[in-house]
Amino acid sequence: MELKFLGTGAGIPSKERNVSAIALKLLQEQNSIWLFDCGESTQHQILRTSIKPGKINKIFITHMHGDHIFGLPGFLSSRSFQGGNDVLTVYGPSGIKDFIETSLKVSGTHLTYPLSIIEITSGRLFENEKFQVDAEKLDHVIPTYGFRITEKDKPGELLVNKLKDNGIMPGPIYQQIKENDKVKTIDDQIIYRKDYIGPDKKGRIISILGDTRSSFQYKAFVQHSDVLVHESTFANELETLANKYFHSTTKQAAMLAKESNSKKLVLTHISSRYQSEDNQMLLAEAREVFPNTELASDFHQTSVSTEE
Amino acid sequence: MELKFLGTGAGIPSKERNVSAIALKLLQEQNSIWLFDCGESTQHQILRTSIKPGKINKIFITHMHGDHIFGLPGFLSSRSFQGGNDVLTVYGPSGIKDFIETSLKVSGTHLTYPLSIIEITSGRLFENEKFQVDAEKLDHVIPTYGFRITEKDKPGELLVNKLKDNGIMPGPIYQQIKENDKVKTIDDQIIYRKDYIGPDKKGRIISILGDTRSSFQYKAFVQHSDVLVHESTFANELETLANKYFHSTTKQAAMLAKESNSKKLVLTHISSRYQSEDNQMLLAEAREVFPNTELASDFHQTSVSTEE
Ligand SMILES: [Zn+2]
Ligand SMILES: [Zn+2]
Repeated sequence: MELKFLGTGAGIPSKERNVSAIALKLLQEQNSIWLFDCGESTQHQILRTSIKPGKINKIFITHMHGDHIFGLPGFLSSRSFQGGNDVLTVYGPSGIKDFIETSLKVSGTHLTYPLSIIEITSGRLFENEKFQVDAEKLDHVIPTYGFRITEKDKPGELLVNKLKDNGIMPGPIYQQIKENDKVKTIDDQIIYRKDYIGPDKKGRIISILGDTRSSFQYKAFVQHSDVLVHESTFANELETLANKYFHSTTKQAAMLAKESNSKKLVLTHISSRYQSEDNQMLLAEAREVFPNTELASDFHQTSVSTEE
Repeated sequence: MELKFLGTGAGIPSKERNVSAIALKLLQEQNSIWLFDCGESTQHQILRTSIKPGKINKIFITHMHGDHIFGLPGFLSSRSFQGGNDVLTVYGPSGIKDFIETSLKVSGTHLTYPLSIIEITSGRLFENEKFQVDAEKLDHVIPTYGFRITEKDKPGELLVNKLKDNGIMPGPIYQQIKENDKVKTIDDQIIYRKDYIGPDKKGRIISILGDTRSSFQYKAFVQHSDVLVHESTFANELETLANKYFHSTTKQAAMLAKESNSKKLVLTHISSRYQSEDNQMLLAEAREVFPNTELASDFHQTSVSTEE
């Protein structure tokens, strides 16, 4: 499970940073990729990675500002020519359906795959046997959401040595023990699963917040994230400006990471006023508060792991 | 006057060619730039040129396919932050208004400049004291237009030597002769302008055709172009395919250039099936029929001159 940052700039594209898009690669977990925001030229950025557009089967849109959605019509259209046959679901704020449907209609685009568009509010957006995704409203100029992606805990491993010690030898019985609370062996021994299964394997938590003013209000929502992705449009000294424009600073993002007991923070959505030579300064400001911080640049990839 | 090709690919962007956009630089003529089509990422391409988005005051859209329009919302929005204060007019087929207005509305975009959107049919689109632009319907899957940009003839130079020979010496009288059919000098001499003005300076003609099947039907419309820009999605051997998909081949484009007595042909809208190593082959096919042919690549620039 990895996060790949496809666009890390704010507002308008620059030579250094494209506008917003992040890919959550769930290839080992479920052979799919989820996209968070889709600014203009996201499909062009994808061309420079190993990501196959056909594998992207969910797109979550934080808010309707152009730098987060104007790449959607092109991405959706091109996916038809790039091996995209499976259903694609787009989750986004009110207006997303109008935008996509108008774009496809006026351009005479006929997709080769089923497209589902879901206009969202706060709460549970999605759940399958492996993941659940929740949305929380943030504090921006227009309705904007943060997403919490929770991997479900996986049952622990079968304690093979303990089974053998108790005379239960490998065979079909092991699978039965895994799948049932209680199993009776051929010699009428009762085996309780709980006695032979190790502790649950903790699922991972990724929180991706869209553009927002800083607030500890989101502490519970992003609690214990293995990776917290937070916008950091401005440096610490521009906190007043950040607040005025409904954005956050390096330090504010770091404080939420710390307060929420998150494990890793990735800063993105960096104002084009900052050049690459400013990266160390921005990063240092955040690390002063929360040491395990990364500053995303385009094509930055970070692993999502419970071990860190 | 120059044409700068910002995107020269067909259908979907590739690493080598972006989707369609061409800039007609009229900086010396009227300190402005016109754009023809605006595929996704056109604003990104512009970042890699010296073109100032604020100077672009007209955009002509050949047709509504996504690879020709999906860069519009982003370009229009960003222009507000890039010194764009003057009115911008977009000319395009039916649907263009719905697309632009929906994109700006759902994204909460407020432009800093007046935007005028004109849905077009064939005929005269625009005329000022220096240029006129006409549209002609082409033969594509959906309504598609070609544009003929005609620079008006400029009055010839004042024949200063001839005036001096006839005893009319430099002074305010020269301006009067330029501006009036007939002028009386202090010593009651009658001067006719026609006797002292050289031949008109021929205006230039640029024809830019959108996606289309090849046809001599457009011969009159593109007649005597100083530069004819023609799509060339396919090589000569794929003429049947070109026809099936409502596109043209290298050779077909060259034949129209020849038949219309155009002076220079530029091929663009090249299928992504062709790599850079195929360029010489594509070019050679066209040059066999029409020697003064160029094959556009992204950022290719060609001058528009009557001298060639
Ligand atoms: Zn933004
Ligand atoms: Zn096209």
